[in-house]
Amino acid sequence: MAVIGLGLMGRALAAAFLKAGHPTTVWNRTAGKADQLVAEGARLAPSVGEALKAGSVTIVCVTDYQAMYELLSESEGGLDGVMLINLTSGDSGQAREAARWAERRGAHYLDGAIMAIPSAIGTAEAVILHSGPESFFEEHESTLGALGTVTYLGADPGLASLYDVAGLAMMWSVLNAWLQGTALLRTAGVDAVTYAPFARQIAATVAEWLPEYAEQVDAGAFPAEVSALETDARAMAHLIEESEAVGVNAELPKLMKAMADRAIAAGHGGEQYPVLIGEFSRPGRDD
Amino acid sequence: MAVIGLGLMGRALAAAFLKAGHPTTVWNRTAGKADQLVAEGARLAPSVGEALKAGSVTIVCVTDYQAMYELLSESEGGLDGVMLINLTSGDSGQAREAARWAERRGAHYLDGAIMAIPSAIGTAEAVILHSGPESFFEEHESTLGALGTVTYLGADPGLASLYDVAGLAMMWSVLNAWLQGTALLRTAGVDAVTYAPFARQIAATVAEWLPEYAEQVDAGAFPAEVSALETDARAMAHLIEESEAVGVNAELPKLMKAMADRAIAAGHGGEQYPVLIGEFSRPGRDD
Repeated sequence: MAVIGLGLMGRALAAAFLKAGHPTTVWNRTAGKADQLVAEGARLAPSVGEALKAGSVTIVCVTDYQAMYELLSESEGGLDGVMLINLTSGDSGQAREAARWAERRGAHYLDGAIMAIPSAIGTAEAVILHSGPESFFEEHESTLGALGTVTYLGADPGLASLYDVAGLAMMWSVLNAWLQGTALLRTAGVDAVTYAPFARQIAATVAEWLPEYAEQVDAGAFPAEVSALETDARAMAHLIEESEAVGVNAELPKLMKAMADRAIAAGHGGEQYPVLIGEFSRPGRDD
Repeated sequence: MAVIGLGLMGRALAAAFLKAGHPTTVWNRTAGKADQLVAEGARLAPSVGEALKAGSVTIVCVTDYQAMYELLSESEGGLDGVMLINLTSGDSGQAREAARWAERRGAHYLDGAIMAIPSAIGTAEAVILHSGPESFFEEHESTLGALGTVTYLGADPGLASLYDVAGLAMMWSVLNAWLQGTALLRTAGVDAVTYAPFARQIAATVAEWLPEYAEQVDAGAFPAEVSALETDARAMAHLIEESEAVGVNAELPKLMKAMADRAIAAGHGGEQYPVLIGEFSRPGRDD
């Protein structure tokens, strides 16, 4: 294994490979960042080119895609036949462009996204998403398993980045809804720890609905089997009123209702909640 | 049992009591709404006052609080000694006011909120929240169990309404985050049913964090044990860019980032996400 880029995350990745017993070569612009890893058994490559030749797989984890292009262009030996896994943060467009760039140079390329903090790397809690040609992933899956729970999403190299931000949107949304509820309940003297199990239960329950609701989205048909969007919108008005009455933030409730109201104005009030996919799939008023 | 108000929900409540074997008296302004229930064994009270005298508990489920006041004021026998459980939709302020109104007339009062659709009433899926004096709830808990999963929240009669809207905020937030992710992934040709299990997993995982995060809120101390808010804000910028790049709605991501940015501007960038309770606990810019 080779790891290029030894920031906090890059060092965690290299350390996890070492701990799993994989011979590991590292490279960083500032070589001092490698000291601890070398003490743990890593080999410090004298150049990017040497790092690329060192292992069957090279993981790149640097500041951004531009930094990756600059580093890899330094390699005197080129990229032909090199297996690159790029765990640098970026968007789906950058990932697709990097895949084409690498392919033109004869490299094998997988894009990845790390859904974890550095200290979780090497444990099952660290979810690492991969996208690109499936055969590349399959060939290296067991080695990559040293990093955490590795997942393959599909051939489009942009998928890892898309799933990553989509997952983060879910994370922040659950946290924000919990904070909205916590703020409401605290006005009545209810502690956050008293309210949290209720919020947890609702989030877990609604999570279970998603696969079935997804069938409505794919079918493009939203019969109001459980309830109609206009019923939701009336209850959203209660949430706004309640939030304003007790003096807590009402911006999130108002955005929810604004999106529902637009779908209702477009004639979807009698359909079920997932009909809002239409609103989510096009730019908003201020976008 | 007596049930006053025979809309869709009131009829479902009365039917559940009948099915559980409780003698049930019903009343509705338009008596014809009672026909089916009478055929199933309900007794139709000739007046509100007769309904209030009929059972040990009277459930009120009407359009709004004003309708409740008007109906109950018709009772020639007054409310002295009557056990009222008000499942009419309203906010926490209305619930507290109704509790005082009922107390002045000698009635026992519990406020409630139904987190279910009418067809779920009588099953464990129907969660019914209650707040008010605990002894009133304990006395009737087993009877109320005919309606679904009945829960007691506390002495403040406003709690049922607050928990109700807080729970709904969580429901819509999970659904909206799932729709945001679904919209993003569909631009890459990923079906909603393919993406849904991933969204479900993230929602369920984050739900498990809430009790521990709640301890930070109650302590008012937000050490960045997992990550710092400024790291979240940078990732939120990626979510916005990704949403805009593929042409999906970015309003929800922008609101998330705006709230995080305000907390960062107030000096909380190095603290953990729940520090946003400060933003959620005060009116927003447009509230």
